[in-house]
Amino acid sequence: MDLHARIRAALAEDLGPGDLTTEACLDAGAITSATIVAKQDVVVSGHAAARAAFEAAAAHYAGFLSYQVEVADGGTAPRGTVIARIHGHARALLVGERLALNLLMRMCGIATHVRDTLAVVGPATFRAVDTRKTTPLWRDLEKAAVRDGGGHNHRFGLFDGVLIKDNHIAAVGSIGETVARVRDAVHHLVRIEVEVSDEAGLVEALEAGADGVLLDNMTDAAMAAAVRVVQERFPRAFVEASGNMDAARMKAIAALGLDVVSVGGFVHQARWADLSLRVSS
Amino acid sequence: MDLHARIRAALAEDLGPGDLTTEACLDAGAITSATIVAKQDVVVSGHAAARAAFEAAAAHYAGFLSYQVEVADGGTAPRGTVIARIHGHARALLVGERLALNLLMRMCGIATHVRDTLAVVGPATFRAVDTRKTTPLWRDLEKAAVRDGGGHNHRFGLFDGVLIKDNHIAAVGSIGETVARVRDAVHHLVRIEVEVSDEAGLVEALEAGADGVLLDNMTDAAMAAAVRVVQERFPRAFVEASGNMDAARMKAIAALGLDVVSVGGFVHQARWADLSLRVSS
Amino acid sequence: MDLHARIRAALAEDLGPGDLTTEACLDAGAITSATIVAKQDVVVSGHAAARAAFEAAAAHYAGFLSYQVEVADGGTAPRGTVIARIHGHARALLVGERLALNLLMRMCGIATHVRDTLAVVGPATFRAVDTRKTTPLWRDLEKAAVRDGGGHNHRFGLFDGVLIKDNHIAAVGSIGETVARVRDAVHHLVRIEVEVSDEAGLVEALEAGADGVLLDNMTDAAMAAAVRVVQERFPRAFVEASGNMDAARMKAIAALGLDVVSVGGFVHQARWADLSLRVSS
Amino acid sequence: MDLHARIRAALAEDLGPGDLTTEACLDAGAITSATIVAKQDVVVSGHAAARAAFEAAAAHYAGFLSYQVEVADGGTAPRGTVIARIHGHARALLVGERLALNLLMRMCGIATHVRDTLAVVGPATFRAVDTRKTTPLWRDLEKAAVRDGGGHNHRFGLFDGVLIKDNHIAAVGSIGETVARVRDAVHHLVRIEVEVSDEAGLVEALEAGADGVLLDNMTDAAMAAAVRVVQERFPRAFVEASGNMDAARMKAIAALGLDVVSVGGFVHQARWADLSLRVSS
Amino acid sequence: MDLHARIRAALAEDLGPGDLTTEACLDAGAITSATIVAKQDVVVSGHAAARAAFEAAAAHYAGFLSYQVEVADGGTAPRGTVIARIHGHARALLVGERLALNLLMRMCGIATHVRDTLAVVGPATFRAVDTRKTTPLWRDLEKAAVRDGGGHNHRFGLFDGVLIKDNHIAAVGSIGETVARVRDAVHHLVRIEVEVSDEAGLVEALEAGADGVLLDNMTDAAMAAAVRVVQERFPRAFVEASGNMDAARMKAIAALGLDVVSVGGFVHQARWADLSLRVSS
Amino acid sequence: MDLHARIRAALAEDLGPGDLTTEACLDAGAITSATIVAKQDVVVSGHAAARAAFEAAAAHYAGFLSYQVEVADGGTAPRGTVIARIHGHARALLVGERLALNLLMRMCGIATHVRDTLAVVGPATFRAVDTRKTTPLWRDLEKAAVRDGGGHNHRFGLFDGVLIKDNHIAAVGSIGETVARVRDAVHHLVRIEVEVSDEAGLVEALEAGADGVLLDNMTDAAMAAAVRVVQERFPRAFVEASGNMDAARMKAIAALGLDVVSVGGFVHQARWADLSLRVSS
Repeated sequence: MDLHARIRAALAEDLGPGDLTTEACLDAGAITSATIVAKQDVVVSGHAAARAAFEAAAAHYAGFLSYQVEVADGGTAPRGTVIARIHGHARALLVGERLALNLLMRMCGIATHVRDTLAVVGPATFRAVDTRKTTPLWRDLEKAAVRDGGGHNHRFGLFDGVLIKDNHIAAVGSIGETVARVRDAVHHLVRIEVEVSDEAGLVEALEAGADGVLLDNMTDAAMAAAVRVVQERFPRAFVEASGNMDAARMKAIAALGLDVVSVGGFVHQARWADLSLRVSS
Repeated sequence: MDLHARIRAALAEDLGPGDLTTEACLDAGAITSATIVAKQDVVVSGHAAARAAFEAAAAHYAGFLSYQVEVADGGTAPRGTVIARIHGHARALLVGERLALNLLMRMCGIATHVRDTLAVVGPATFRAVDTRKTTPLWRDLEKAAVRDGGGHNHRFGLFDGVLIKDNHIAAVGSIGETVARVRDAVHHLVRIEVEVSDEAGLVEALEAGADGVLLDNMTDAAMAAAVRVVQERFPRAFVEASGNMDAARMKAIAALGLDVVSVGGFVHQARWADLSLRVSS
Repeated sequence: MDLHARIRAALAEDLGPGDLTTEACLDAGAITSATIVAKQDVVVSGHAAARAAFEAAAAHYAGFLSYQVEVADGGTAPRGTVIARIHGHARALLVGERLALNLLMRMCGIATHVRDTLAVVGPATFRAVDTRKTTPLWRDLEKAAVRDGGGHNHRFGLFDGVLIKDNHIAAVGSIGETVARVRDAVHHLVRIEVEVSDEAGLVEALEAGADGVLLDNMTDAAMAAAVRVVQERFPRAFVEASGNMDAARMKAIAALGLDVVSVGGFVHQARWADLSLRVSS
Repeated sequence: MDLHARIRAALAEDLGPGDLTTEACLDAGAITSATIVAKQDVVVSGHAAARAAFEAAAAHYAGFLSYQVEVADGGTAPRGTVIARIHGHARALLVGERLALNLLMRMCGIATHVRDTLAVVGPATFRAVDTRKTTPLWRDLEKAAVRDGGGHNHRFGLFDGVLIKDNHIAAVGSIGETVARVRDAVHHLVRIEVEVSDEAGLVEALEAGADGVLLDNMTDAAMAAAVRVVQERFPRAFVEASGNMDAARMKAIAALGLDVVSVGGFVHQARWADLSLRVSS
Repeated sequence: MDLHARIRAALAEDLGPGDLTTEACLDAGAITSATIVAKQDVVVSGHAAARAAFEAAAAHYAGFLSYQVEVADGGTAPRGTVIARIHGHARALLVGERLALNLLMRMCGIATHVRDTLAVVGPATFRAVDTRKTTPLWRDLEKAAVRDGGGHNHRFGLFDGVLIKDNHIAAVGSIGETVARVRDAVHHLVRIEVEVSDEAGLVEALEAGADGVLLDNMTDAAMAAAVRVVQERFPRAFVEASGNMDAARMKAIAALGLDVVSVGGFVHQARWADLSLRVSS
Repeated sequence: MDLHARIRAALAEDLGPGDLTTEACLDAGAITSATIVAKQDVVVSGHAAARAAFEAAAAHYAGFLSYQVEVADGGTAPRGTVIARIHGHARALLVGERLALNLLMRMCGIATHVRDTLAVVGPATFRAVDTRKTTPLWRDLEKAAVRDGGGHNHRFGLFDGVLIKDNHIAAVGSIGETVARVRDAVHHLVRIEVEVSDEAGLVEALEAGADGVLLDNMTDAAMAAAVRVVQERFPRAFVEASGNMDAARMKAIAALGLDVVSVGGFVHQARWADLSLRVSS
């Protein structure tokens, strides 16, 4: 579903057969203005979704709403900053408000959490990336929020990268055969990564031709050792690490030489940022 | 969109044109089993969505997956407990895993957070309810999770209850006229609530015939005074309070005589619960 | 489905792969004008749907049609009155004509029937409301037509009001337990109504805390007695009556003190109003 | 949209986020039975839609409902007859009831009205057919109801037959050129009919190669004359008549030699038949 | 599904969650221009689909693209001719390019193949028409391409014409009964055609009242004889022939007196025309 | 759109409001059997789509059809071989026939064409892969058909691999900056390929860190030289070639050392295979 279809469906979820209050109170032709204000320091993310929410509400009433960005996605807004201005059809503005804020507060919350986390981590050898632990139907927005906060993305889904896990290897019988089977099946623009839990697995995977490995839930010492093995024996391969990564842990492993660290918590440990919409009097 | 349509769309978000890894590794006819295990103490919520995710994955491959509940929605699962068992088409099981867990971890996270919060609050005169601050397209599941955690729900959306806010009153001109206009417009099974910020507004709203009031961001003392006014002068009216409610605040106001307290944080301050899916070897 | 999606689907129903006649006869760039004329006295309703039908037809041909309202929804149009003017893409105008008229004739028919019925009834203590006996997929338009004709609406559907019927009570075991169970389940902005067939049921329901009762298919005398009981013992409760209500019956019970009378026939006994579209030469 | 998609959308219209009453009262696993009973003499029509409504409700609850036809479409059911039996998931049965009845009452109403009309008309030279004046999104069911009542159908929509009207001729310039242009454009399995208002038009159309004519709003005498002209000069052509046809008028022209009479009122003047659903105790 | 819905779905097929290359390279606000050039002599077809593809891409990026036709559908473009110009949002232009060309190359390929075939055939007594052997979901475009190449269309689908085949006759028992049953069932604007394999079948079908026959896979001599029989005994009936028709065969039977020849190969033997899109520097 | 949604939409395209012929002739309860037979030597592909077509037709009639594969996808079927058997609901079988065959004939046509082409090419250093020149909405099936014929796939769409073309480089300004910008934007499981037209571009791209190059429309000699440069200076990089590749050209360059050759004609130059469905008598 494209963004607009999801936004229309989400508006329908809230609006059902109509807004009992607004339609009884506001004249069909009324015009108004509003601002969206940061009530805490935030990294901004989610404007496209918020704009789409107001446009969908306006379309519902066959009216018009303009959405003007004041602090762009990726920008920093101190508490009290106006991040967007909306003008137009008054009923639509009130009806779209909640959906727009629900998305914007979520995405600003993620971007802010990522930025705060990375500020603690400081310089590191690795890219900090997200995972597939995202809110169903809003992965694109959440991944954009991670980028807006200064993080990077891992593969989008199951279709644009190969990550071989234990269950795959168990089904095939050996790492070598698994890598070979996948290499034959996938196109030449996709890299193959193998999740490993020890050095033996790492060596087997890379000898079989994998492009890189994912170190899953290893100790810092084990990660360091793994990085050394790869640097010595497989200098073109990449090394990713994952497993309950938070800011402190990432800081602790920042100099180990890892290429990528994946952090589910970028998304699922983030809380909503505090924003409010104020209608001009 | 009904649950099944959303689940199918969410599966498509993750799966795109196909799972590069699983389809290369697992035989189309392979059968397997798995358990979903709580890795922390949780209140369970979200089984219907998880089941639907596995069924959608199975339908994609024209196969079959069974989903057996071990700890039902609303039940408590100590760390290590198996909360569900899945059996059937192996590719579908691996493909559906992430979507099922993303929903289940989110809903268990909410239910657990609600239960934990209410445990702190203890006995209270009020129902603790959620708000419309929910994840777009998943409001039904999140509201069910609030109930599974022991909370109650506020109105579902804009269509099944009236909440008159400042902007509505400003547009009409007076509280009395606003309440009258809404009463004329809405059907007789819907109650009318008015958001007020002081005692004068409260009295004006209830004299105008509102069924109840929402005290927005008042101090404890102001809330207590408001409750007394209502009990004396409008004994059939209800009183709701809201505004950055957390466990401590709710505990502090538990005996004021409020009827309802609404808590956005039930949903937007909850973090995902930690669950894992383990394939049987 | 929102109105526009239903209109597009309805246009596709009529148009299929194309209008054999119009596309063979009219030049793709032709422009024309038309009026919609009342061929009988009508109360107007349905302009939004008619406009959407012409817009959908215009969109199909990547063209444009304007729709100008001459007599607004809720207005009265004597026979011969122009109620709307359409101008623009000629093929689209002819292709959208039937769908626009089918909806407009239906909605004007309902509004006119409601107005005619209420004119017979005259002053009454009650609101005359519709029911859930509406044409599937067009309930919003039909309920708007009832309002345009001077009637009121009952709940929209199963989700925005509680009406406890015999089957519900039978399943639970007693009226008291049923009302209690529902009160616990539903949010505080929804009222609870219980369908009763005699005075005992009425008293039991209201004592259990129901907000009102629906007197189903009672005689006039029984209704009068029921109203007296409620007024004396449950002065805050409302009383609704239903059961094959037509104009004469409603007139007969106008002064009994009922709060609401629900009339399925507002919708299902209405016939289409007679309108025609005339292309300007 | 296929029938099932429309039924699902129609169920969503009524059900929204859930049936407040039924879900609070009935146990999720409860099983029940019901009958649908004719409360007046009816010709039955609409079973497929009613069955689909119950199946959609059952699917919503991941349950099962069986629907057993007792009097098939096209059959006659005297007052009091059971026309269908439903058994299974109790919540689903109550939730699907209204949608099923709304469709069934509408379709039985049409079929009964058609049969009653044709009974008055008696033997006639013509087929009595419906028109495109049908309820948007339910044309297939309404046309089936016309057949179940003993009538026939006209073309389904704009795509499966040619009917040239004044506006088409005006756009092209002459009847001859219009017929020629259409003949060139359409495939060889489609006949061409021309709407005419006098004998001159009739002759011009048939000389131009039209397969038949539609006499629009002519007097009985004019129709009789037109039929004679066609029989003498264009013996292979067909003659259709239309214009506010009711039973009396159709009876009056039954022997004129017309081939087809089209009757918009078969659909838009029909009222709902009276049916009720009774849950077994 | 209407054209725009199919185009949106087709764009999603190619674009998924985003164009990795274009979004990384081109500025969101960049504007550019391009031409679509014929790299071989072509008959043009498919502009509406190409325009819709670019518009869908522009809508995805909330931008704008204009599409200006230089050689209209049905026109001839020698090698090197510019057939369309596109201007606007640069990302959208590159993203829409492939879908637009895939449709345009296919439709120009069909139109060109039809024109080339008919040029070989030369004057003939028959209309050369397509069949239902078309690419699923793109039949409307492919049938338009056949017309743009100078061919005609057969019925669009199963719903707008009757073609009785062996299996239908076998199921009913006799040609006479089959024709009678169909005549009773279908509306009066649809003709009935019967597929026959010999003269006996032809006579039986036409005596039973069929409007025409389809000679399936007959020799030239048998076709000639069949035509003579029809001309003598059933002068109003039409005769169609089919069965692996190519240009040479059609030329050979051009003077036999057939009314229609249907040619599946118009669509399924056509190859894509060679077009390219060139971005202006 | 998933396969089933596309198949349902494609069935609706052909079926519209119903099959005039089949529904008039065949009894609703009739059961029959059929075989699909190869009328030429074919490589089989497309069974899943054919099965889905028959299942969709069966669902339309609330009936059942079984589809039994006799020669699996990728298998070879000499002329006269039965490749599938269908049994069940007779109306559904006749209604689904055309859609099933249209897809099966197309996919078998591609698979057969790929196999025939590769048989001419013989041993080669490269993988022969398809391109994005596929039929919109059926890319997944066409890519599977290429695999069934012994070919390989290139990236699926714009989202699962990077191919930098002239327009991208022109927009950025230099190859080096373009590759750097893309590397920063995309996740670490995606490779970057650059389209080059001469050796200077090739060197610039690979020095900038591209993973491989696409030689576009080069002569055989230029390709040979390019391969040598890569093998000497960039031994880990891959080399792809494209540009009007047919069997003869591919054979001529089979030993040059290319890694990948992409062949649009695998799909767009394939013609339908000849299959027929025979109903058992």
